[in-house]
Amino acid sequence: MELCGNIIPTPSTAKYDPDNLHRCYRLKNHTGRCKEYPYLDHMHTVAPGVRQKIIRDATKTTGASWKSSDAGPNRISRWTMLLSDDELLQLGISMSALKQWVQDKLREKAAPYEDCMAVAQKLTWLAYGMRNAPPADDWTRDYLESLFGTIPSGDTGCFVCLKPLDFELFHKARRGKAEIETGHRTPRSHTAENTGFTHRECNIAQGPLTVDEFYDWMENVLSRARPHVLNNPSSLPTK
Amino acid sequence: MELCGNIIPTPSTAKYDPDNLHRCYRLKNHTGRCKEYPYLDHMHTVAPGVRQKIIRDATKTTGASWKSSDAGPNRISRWTMLLSDDELLQLGISMSALKQWVQDKLREKAAPYEDCMAVAQKLTWLAYGMRNAPPADDWTRDYLESLFGTIPSGDTGCFVCLKPLDFELFHKARRGKAEIETGHRTPRSHTAENTGFTHRECNIAQGPLTVDEFYDWMENVLSRARPHVLNNPSSLPTK
Repeated sequence: MELCGNIIPTPSTAKYDPDNLHRCYRLKNHTGRCKEYPYLDHMHTVAPGVRQKIIRDATKTTGASWKSSDAGPNRISRWTMLLSDDELLQLGISMSALKQWVQDKLREKAAPYEDCMAVAQKLTWLAYGMRNAPPADDWTRDYLESLFGTIPSGDTGCFVCLKPLDFELFHKARRGKAEIETGHRTPRSHTAENTGFTHRECNIAQGPLTVDEFYDWMENVLSRARPHVLNNPSSLPTK
Repeated sequence: MELCGNIIPTPSTAKYDPDNLHRCYRLKNHTGRCKEYPYLDHMHTVAPGVRQKIIRDATKTTGASWKSSDAGPNRISRWTMLLSDDELLQLGISMSALKQWVQDKLREKAAPYEDCMAVAQKLTWLAYGMRNAPPADDWTRDYLESLFGTIPSGDTGCFVCLKPLDFELFHKARRGKAEIETGHRTPRSHTAENTGFTHRECNIAQGPLTVDEFYDWMENVLSRARPHVLNNPSSLPTK
């Protein structure tokens, strides 16, 4: 699949973005105007909030729910966090004025534009694969399947607990927090391969560990709390 | 062990507290002035921050780190949250002005004064039982052991992962968050029996589940992620 790739104007929501970064992701030689997220047009008509969430999670450092006064500037593009402190200062972001852990939190979300675009595509493909997801229209399905293969109808699961995710969960929130979160099998690696959806509570439980480390931790805990359920507790890691 | 039990003045830090609630927890017929936390006097000399944390976690609804503008009034006494909305309004706390989830969060921390006092005693006993804890002086040890039995020298563990906790962790924090948290085996039940210390990450991972539910969940996840490590996955709960 060949894409247009033309430079498109920086969106007004991306106030810290450099010029000439955003690209058109429609097919090469398309008619009509260039678009960054053509594969989310159908989602916009059936679940606009999901489209918005996918773009936000794929491209921004923090969500709107992070309202603490310590939080620093909200919704900076991930690729902007690849710039040096000096370059950021020229954009109006004073990193040195933020607490160290806020700087760290912003920096760990850094990712190149191309990776973020691939994550958005992957998340869209995964969302259409959830139980009770609206079926993608033909154009969108072809686009996504040419990138990632057949959409896993009803099989998109939480990559932590491995249970299926229901698309309806996108519309549910408790205490202002969405029930579905975007997570990373290996934290901080924001690539299409490493990124997926999780239950909110699974993502929180995974914490700073990789998914495999988290399973190791579970085995380790159960070896103490419920040794009888494990086959071979003596082979477990000790830390 | 008989305690004094005399009413003591409401501390200046407890601005929403009713009069005539706070009690003296020194031994009956003690000399000198009445004290609410006599068993924390020794801790005050060796680790004042730990004393402060124990009192805060035992008695307050939220910690200072909860700085969001949505958070509502900070550090309300847990027993104050037993009052009705009308009674709270008279104390200057307008519950109806807070978002529902903030109200819920405050209400779920509600606990009677006596339970909070017992939690403070228990946490102190547990803290002295951690690895590398300073040894309690004789008076304090006798006081705590008459309540809960022999201090478990070096054996106080995280009640989630069941690994020993090191007293030094009280002095460590990452991103402004302490490494040791006070948690509840069954969430929301703030009693001495149900309350203990955890690693911060273990407490977060436990989330809204009881510890047993959390172990069930782990078994369930591992039955999908690593079925070979479990003895009898078919007997696991399915939800």
